[in-house]
Amino acid sequence: MHQQFNFLIEVLGTISFAMSGSFAAMQKRLDPFGVLIIAFVTSVGGGTVRDLLLDVPVFWMTDMLTCSLIFFTCLFSMIFKSIERNFKVTLFIFDSFGLGLFTIIGIQKGLSVGLHPLICLTLGTITGCFGGIIRDILLNRIPLIFRKEIYATACIIGGGIFLLMTKYSGWSYTLVQISTILLIVVIRTLAVKYHWQIPKFYDDGSHGEA
Amino acid sequence: MHQQFNFLIEVLGTISFAMSGSFAAMQKRLDPFGVLIIAFVTSVGGGTVRDLLLDVPVFWMTDMLTCSLIFFTCLFSMIFKSIERNFKVTLFIFDSFGLGLFTIIGIQKGLSVGLHPLICLTLGTITGCFGGIIRDILLNRIPLIFRKEIYATACIIGGGIFLLMTKYSGWSYTLVQISTILLIVVIRTLAVKYHWQIPKFYDDGSHGEA
Amino acid sequence: MHQQFNFLIEVLGTISFAMSGSFAAMQKRLDPFGVLIIAFVTSVGGGTVRDLLLDVPVFWMTDMLTCSLIFFTCLFSMIFKSIERNFKVTLFIFDSFGLGLFTIIGIQKGLSVGLHPLICLTLGTITGCFGGIIRDILLNRIPLIFRKEIYATACIIGGGIFLLMTKYSGWSYTLVQISTILLIVVIRTLAVKYHWQIPKFYDDGSHGEA
Repeated sequence: MHQQFNFLIEVLGTISFAMSGSFAAMQKRLDPFGVLIIAFVTSVGGGTVRDLLLDVPVFWMTDMLTCSLIFFTCLFSMIFKSIERNFKVTLFIFDSFGLGLFTIIGIQKGLSVGLHPLICLTLGTITGCFGGIIRDILLNRIPLIFRKEIYATACIIGGGIFLLMTKYSGWSYTLVQISTILLIVVIRTLAVKYHWQIPKFYDDGSHGEA
Repeated sequence: MHQQFNFLIEVLGTISFAMSGSFAAMQKRLDPFGVLIIAFVTSVGGGTVRDLLLDVPVFWMTDMLTCSLIFFTCLFSMIFKSIERNFKVTLFIFDSFGLGLFTIIGIQKGLSVGLHPLICLTLGTITGCFGGIIRDILLNRIPLIFRKEIYATACIIGGGIFLLMTKYSGWSYTLVQISTILLIVVIRTLAVKYHWQIPKFYDDGSHGEA
Repeated sequence: MHQQFNFLIEVLGTISFAMSGSFAAMQKRLDPFGVLIIAFVTSVGGGTVRDLLLDVPVFWMTDMLTCSLIFFTCLFSMIFKSIERNFKVTLFIFDSFGLGLFTIIGIQKGLSVGLHPLICLTLGTITGCFGGIIRDILLNRIPLIFRKEIYATACIIGGGIFLLMTKYSGWSYTLVQISTILLIVVIRTLAVKYHWQIPKFYDDGSHGEA
């Protein structure tokens, strides 16, 4: 059941990240191949950077399922362009679940090769967030992650609690996993619903371009 | 002859991508070292990402020819700055040939390690297009590939036909190679000449920043 | 003593790059986690790209010291936000020393696996400059390196002289190292003080978007 649970959410995560990439690209009025490329990098970007850093085979290179999922999701998004409006909440939930599981997967991959927990937390954050960062760089906007939402913050908090619970809680692994993914989803949802923001640093006009 | 043909076009491709990088950088008024760096990443960027993904040695690290070619092309472009105007068509042809061959080289590298054809097509597109994408990111403009030209599209169509013909046509390998490279060149040329565009998605103003 | 010297300056370089990243991120009004991420990529970006290209283990993955240094530097920068104004010169000196040593470290790593000196020079430049380039890409500004300062130029000149002196000067290794780092610092300092600029290419309005 544990494997199947992982598999299910990974599929949903891939689909939702591909959708988020497709919609962002259509909004910037790219042509269909451009949309496909953006959907692809949004979905696999984080895991690719993680695998390059770990020097393990890049996960999508031998895995036709991921590529097919992205292709059909992208096609679906282009055909039913208007779903974005109607399913905005659904999309947001998918995206948050994807973020949660991708973070946990990144941490697990790091732990499995014996890295220090804090490095694993970094890898988890990279897996969850870099796809979106690369998407925003390609579309030439300031990575959204750095602006509006509690995004990386949810990864870091959820991942940290995952690491602590794995070590100290005595709960079963699957339970720890499910709770931390849910925690990440809840943090993001509450943050967006109630406009939580971490205080930012305001420019007091005193420094030039460093 | 097959080897020499590959070699010849690879040299022309490297030169033309280095030129395209140099001119883009001079247009943005970078200093000579900036121009050299942009020429370098434009020319080797795609192949570098491909080699990192495949986990094989990065091709230019042990190959002084590529580096020398880029250096002298860049020097030449800076000295004869005005050639861009006079040789615009020549440059465009070179660039298209480079695109074609780099795409085919990427596909071949993928096939040689036994990857699925669709993954190989992805690698081919990355090899052909990522140099230009990185150039545009560094120069802070929206990757041109996503805006005006049938660029990635030509890669994907040409590469797809290359894969089909390799498997089903019964033609000699060199012939398949030459025809698909020519096909990519022809698609791009016609697209630019007759202002072909793939229909884009227009923003109907209904979604905010997703 | 040689090891300790290397270690000392590497620590100072890491700290100063983390500071430069933190201040740039605070200026763009990111939240604390965004600031931490920018500090991290500024500090480790160059070395990470270098290690990926060389296909050796990425240096910070097994090195808690680097990560801790970045974390505490970032915390310190956020708390004592105003130090930037008072310690601008100090920061600039640190940054230049970091640039110098990171360049030399990159060259040494390349030489130790038997690469051609010019490739090693490229690796040194990448190690010194890419952290700052990635920082500026993430913050959506044109990489400063390409605009105002003699930055890459100092790397390339200093690195070139390091390679020549290692081979021909007959000086001890540590001495060559110290002199070239100082040379890079001096070039940058004089360049900034006296507004040295390498002549740039001005757009004569004759070319469109290449």
